[in-house]
Amino acid sequence: MNLSTNNEIDIVRASSTKINDIDFDNLVFGNIFTDHMLICDFKDGKWQKPTIKPYEPFLLDPSAKVFHYGQAIFEGMKAYKDNNDDVWLFRPDENFDRFNKSAKRMAMPEVPEEVFLGGLHEILKIEKDWVKKGKGNTLYIRPFMIATGTGVVAAPSSQYRFMIILSPAKAYYSGEVKVIIAEHYSRAANGGIGAAKAAGNYSAQFYPTKLANEQGFQQIIWTDDATHTKLEEAGTMNVFFRINDTLFTAPSSERILDGVTRKSIIALAEKEGIDIQVRSVLVWELVEAAKNGTLKEIFGAGTAAVINPIVGFSYKDEYFELPKLEDSVALKLKDKLTNIQYKLEEDTFGWTVKI
Amino acid sequence: MNLSTNNEIDIVRASSTKINDIDFDNLVFGNIFTDHMLICDFKDGKWQKPTIKPYEPFLLDPSAKVFHYGQAIFEGMKAYKDNNDDVWLFRPDENFDRFNKSAKRMAMPEVPEEVFLGGLHEILKIEKDWVKKGKGNTLYIRPFMIATGTGVVAAPSSQYRFMIILSPAKAYYSGEVKVIIAEHYSRAANGGIGAAKAAGNYSAQFYPTKLANEQGFQQIIWTDDATHTKLEEAGTMNVFFRINDTLFTAPSSERILDGVTRKSIIALAEKEGIDIQVRSVLVWELVEAAKNGTLKEIFGAGTAAVINPIVGFSYKDEYFELPKLEDSVALKLKDKLTNIQYKLEEDTFGWTVKI
Ligand SMILES: Cc1ncc(COP(=O)(O)O)c(C=O)c1O
Ligand SMILES: Cc1ncc(COP(=O)(O)O)c(C=O)c1O
Repeated sequence: MNLSTNNEIDIVRASSTKINDIDFDNLVFGNIFTDHMLICDFKDGKWQKPTIKPYEPFLLDPSAKVFHYGQAIFEGMKAYKDNNDDVWLFRPDENFDRFNKSAKRMAMPEVPEEVFLGGLHEILKIEKDWVKKGKGNTLYIRPFMIATGTGVVAAPSSQYRFMIILSPAKAYYSGEVKVIIAEHYSRAANGGIGAAKAAGNYSAQFYPTKLANEQGFQQIIWTDDATHTKLEEAGTMNVFFRINDTLFTAPSSERILDGVTRKSIIALAEKEGIDIQVRSVLVWELVEAAKNGTLKEIFGAGTAAVINPIVGFSYKDEYFELPKLEDSVALKLKDKLTNIQYKLEEDTFGWTVKI
Repeated sequence: MNLSTNNEIDIVRASSTKINDIDFDNLVFGNIFTDHMLICDFKDGKWQKPTIKPYEPFLLDPSAKVFHYGQAIFEGMKAYKDNNDDVWLFRPDENFDRFNKSAKRMAMPEVPEEVFLGGLHEILKIEKDWVKKGKGNTLYIRPFMIATGTGVVAAPSSQYRFMIILSPAKAYYSGEVKVIIAEHYSRAANGGIGAAKAAGNYSAQFYPTKLANEQGFQQIIWTDDATHTKLEEAGTMNVFFRINDTLFTAPSSERILDGVTRKSIIALAEKEGIDIQVRSVLVWELVEAAKNGTLKEIFGAGTAAVINPIVGFSYKDEYFELPKLEDSVALKLKDKLTNIQYKLEEDTFGWTVKI
């Protein structure tokens, strides 16, 4: 190993790279990691010096709070390579802000900008060869924080570990995405943690999603838990509905994650002169629009899935298929968005940040 | 180390014990563990042979699903020692059943009885000296299961680890417990995971509980998230209200943990001829009863806290102090319950199980 140090980060280089063993054309989402990881521990009331070191398992006590109380948050970002071999991030400040909002809601310490964004720049410089050129190729970035303090008493930890791991990725979904609208289960409570990227929000969806999968649906569109009448979001995507030529998406709220892709789509749609309305769409409106033919598109939007057209939805055991369009707004917006991300079009919003 | 094996469990004995270093009169809840732990891994679609071995940290991959998606559940039980030095469990079948209900809701594999209850008996035989005689002394038992499979994609793990760790314990709360009634935050959604002992339910409460602590309250009494009008439960306790001579407690539901202590209290109260009603108590009823003097007691009930009298509650910035009673039903029931647990009174219910 080759130890180097800059002032803010200790760096221990891996003695060899796995990169030549990877089949970059056939990646399954999220199961291969690059050679290095970033670790930064919080203890004695403060953040310690971060380290970048070879990716490897680490030791935790059986009573670590993350195991018992789920005190854990994460972010999901991507790095893109342009045709000049430069590596870019997309609105990283948004993920950094949201991470610290999640931290606050979960009673965890906020992570300093030098550690989150500074550390991310540093590890991406080291791992830049893992970002492949060409639309659709990305390096998925997973910053996360777990409670490492010990003790089986339901109270916040006093020790935490912040980490960044990186996974080369292509598409999140392969194949068509059909969804089912939630009638009984839900993902978030009023006054709960739905707006945080908290670990517990995701496993809470596994069982209902498994039931949906068994019926042939890839995802659930969640509704508000009190009445199940308002369409909210999907597992890891915000959701847009196009009725005639208007796009609708639910407002962000305590129950809904304030997605970066979602807010970028809203801005792009406005720029493109597409009519976009941020308001709750009711289930009956969707069903009615599907029945009378005014429902043109539904799509999910999120960093992992990018923009994902939905081919049909089920509600109360009735399945509604969406039309196959020549002029899909989803695909038009996806093109605009990815052109900015891959630097194929001018970024008039100032969203992209070079590594 | 001294390796022995029975047919079902591999046992690796610790070479020395920490027991002589422990000050059993001054225990802080949940931060000291016995010499051994039980581990049983689930992989390739089945449970492997469990091992009892020295308590120690273990390795996990940075992409382990428990870190990212909070797929983790637990139980809380206690072992008690009677005056003949025999060790007893209290209704362990209830915890075993509830654990597997939690597993199902969190899309985790159910743990076999031989592993959960069989393993618990085995480790308690080894650690019996850690259970101290005398009312109030217990060995707190923490069975738990975490998703150890790797990959940053929000879907159930294919690998899990079930563990049992043990912590000598006295009281959970030291000092008086005042509570605040939730007006904005909540712990569980309709159709959510509130009835499961899922890790994420607990960290979700840390921030609102911290706010309550800062105002001088130890706990929150949660209300239903849709209307905040129904009194539900506290962080790790179900809650009982005594108005005149009637005890009330909320029905168990999708949002409320079906507590073993709660159901034991209901049975004990019935046996003692105490009027007990299982129904939602509304916040306004409680406030009115406090104002007109008919509210006699509030107490929390849970394995860790046993029965915990609450001295007062706050609602909409008004604080209501409860009377100090000579004939507290809470203390009477606590006495009955702990007499059964410590084998000081006959267990006509068949709740106690000898190790
Ligand atoms: C619950 C949820 N909703 C929406 C999103 C989309 O957010 P973003 O566009 O920031 O990735 C995500 C994924 O990150 C998510 O986890
Ligand atoms: C949320 C919650 N409610 C109630 C209880 C009380 O349940 P039990 O009496 O089974 O310990 C617990 C603790 O176990 C709990 O975590």
